[in-house]
Amino acid sequence: MPDNRFIYLDNAASTTNDESVLDVFVDSTRNYFANPSSIHAEGQKGADMLQKAHRDLIKAMGLDGFEAILTSGATEANNLAIKGYCLKNRRRGNHIVTSAIEHPSVLETVKQMCEELGFEATYVLPNKDGIVTLESVQKAIRKDTILVSIMHVNNETGTVNPIQEIGKYLRQFPKIAFHVDGVQAFGKFRKKADISDVDMFSITGHKIHGLMGCGALIKRKNIGLMPLFSGGGQEGGYRSGTNDLAHAKAFIKTVDVAFKNRVQNFDNMMILANKLVSYLLEHKDLYEVNSVLPIVNPYIINFSTLTKKASVVVEALSNEGIMVSSVSACHSSKEKESYVVRAMGKSEQIARNTIRVSFDSENTLEDVEIFIETLDNIIKKIR
Amino acid sequence: MPDNRFIYLDNAASTTNDESVLDVFVDSTRNYFANPSSIHAEGQKGADMLQKAHRDLIKAMGLDGFEAILTSGATEANNLAIKGYCLKNRRRGNHIVTSAIEHPSVLETVKQMCEELGFEATYVLPNKDGIVTLESVQKAIRKDTILVSIMHVNNETGTVNPIQEIGKYLRQFPKIAFHVDGVQAFGKFRKKADISDVDMFSITGHKIHGLMGCGALIKRKNIGLMPLFSGGGQEGGYRSGTNDLAHAKAFIKTVDVAFKNRVQNFDNMMILANKLVSYLLEHKDLYEVNSVLPIVNPYIINFSTLTKKASVVVEALSNEGIMVSSVSACHSSKEKESYVVRAMGKSEQIARNTIRVSFDSENTLEDVEIFIETLDNIIKKIR
Repeated sequence: MPDNRFIYLDNAASTTNDESVLDVFVDSTRNYFANPSSIHAEGQKGADMLQKAHRDLIKAMGLDGFEAILTSGATEANNLAIKGYCLKNRRRGNHIVTSAIEHPSVLETVKQMCEELGFEATYVLPNKDGIVTLESVQKAIRKDTILVSIMHVNNETGTVNPIQEIGKYLRQFPKIAFHVDGVQAFGKFRKKADISDVDMFSITGHKIHGLMGCGALIKRKNIGLMPLFSGGGQEGGYRSGTNDLAHAKAFIKTVDVAFKNRVQNFDNMMILANKLVSYLLEHKDLYEVNSVLPIVNPYIINFSTLTKKASVVVEALSNEGIMVSSVSACHSSKEKESYVVRAMGKSEQIARNTIRVSFDSENTLEDVEIFIETLDNIIKKIR
Repeated sequence: MPDNRFIYLDNAASTTNDESVLDVFVDSTRNYFANPSSIHAEGQKGADMLQKAHRDLIKAMGLDGFEAILTSGATEANNLAIKGYCLKNRRRGNHIVTSAIEHPSVLETVKQMCEELGFEATYVLPNKDGIVTLESVQKAIRKDTILVSIMHVNNETGTVNPIQEIGKYLRQFPKIAFHVDGVQAFGKFRKKADISDVDMFSITGHKIHGLMGCGALIKRKNIGLMPLFSGGGQEGGYRSGTNDLAHAKAFIKTVDVAFKNRVQNFDNMMILANKLVSYLLEHKDLYEVNSVLPIVNPYIINFSTLTKKASVVVEALSNEGIMVSSVSACHSSKEKESYVVRAMGKSEQIARNTIRVSFDSENTLEDVEIFIETLDNIIKKIR
């Protein structure tokens, strides 16, 4: 649980851990420590529970014809999806379509595929609201395209991309696989995401009150991948390494908790997001709002400071016990501007001074009110 | 802690978790949940602790000029070392030297490098005792060799390879990096391993009472690697993905615990191993010993059943509440023979009927006595 002395509004970077998830982890670690690959009774007990965890995950997501590859997190899942699919299927083509606003674990991976491994990529730009449209993806498709990777919800702005629409369209290209980085979307909509037209979907636990170090690549069964980890052949051969039962069980628990409270959480987030955006829009001389409600998922609101350096404001907020993010925690601290906001066509000035506020079910309207008041004071005092 | 109802002698597959390690994990998960890449105070608190964990690990290992890349385990560390080094340095050559008795996470990785990515490999055979000698490695070196990967202690037989000797020899070849899979050696010798002539060393936590899902590649600072996970640039750019502070802290605690009890544990293991080997050698009509004491590390004793199928014996032992391994937990259960024992020049019959007993500080002499008695009954009854 968060320390009561501070207000944490950086939940898109990482959330607190749910105690019931931690309980599952501790219980499994204490009681089922054998290697699930061992053929003796203790090993097989673990193997059975591990299989159940895989099945439960697919079932919880309401999918059919899919399987789960458990990973150390979403960065691994994104790397496995992109490198694994492209290297396995390079005979079919060597072109990748992605967007300019993907998470670094997608962008840097695509870059590596191009610079080191002979692939080519087209980076689709979002529209002015930050959305990657179907039309823009359509235009980028080439005869040698084998992979399209478009995120569901952007990690800096909360913008929601039309992945169902894009998925349906891509169905006509049998050699193109459609990968979606679902990290900021998973468990954060009123309804379960419809990913029935997606081929690979990356998720992680620590953005929805789970442990760090557990995520998954959910993939259609007929999608072939070259593994990043070769070895003992665990996870269907797609991800070798001793199976981590405690993490697997904790991850399923995480998903259960997130799905159970989905509707109520979403509605609450909408109230918090509206409160913040209303304040920001009332002060157009001080802020530019980069997250357009209701287009964005309300868990993330991004804005730019017009009169003061965002980094200074974030530090001042931190000194007052309020944790928010400038640009994104996923970058090294050296990053100077938000490439996401820049890709939306906004100025360098705006892109350099973004602040990301990301909510969570643990936040209250009072938290947001304190944040607004503190921000207001800082901005006016500094000015 | 292991259930008292069974005797667990499969510690080379995985050990129980130390409660003090679990405590560190739980404390960190509860209290330091922020993303260490976040620039606010809570993030920076995590970043500082994370840096300390890296420094402490290198210090605990008594190294200078090395750095730690924290990974999800040894399979990842081995894959990162081999794929990362070869892909980064392919302009210098494309030949790999390894041994025929490496763990699958090395062997399968080298195979993948050869079959999919244009590399060539020489697989050095061990001598009849299972040791990969310096001489055999010398013979395998070519002008285009860029990587030598030889494990420290074999996971099936406990055989110890002369990695210091090999490392010293390889120093004369500046373009060759020397990687050592140290999983079954780390924390399991009387003295700390001298890896000052090694360039990369893979370790993991769950074989020494740590959590699953945490390991490391310890590498000399000047060794360049192509990352398996591209993204936010964490772990010095060698392994992107949200830093997992709880795992990092738990891993350091694991190493501390293992190193603290090293001498006493080793001496105890020698007593247990001697007890078992004495029994086996007294019944040469029933067993062939594949682990020659004192050549092997006493944590692992491997033998073959001469009169009965090992898989049947392992199952019968499991039914009696004694957990041991046939072949190795690192393989899929479909593996029919031990390629390690086969590579030692032993017959197919011997290689098909190996049993691995792997000890741990939690085992007592009484455990071994019960194991011997039970094994003796099973072998004689079945016969």
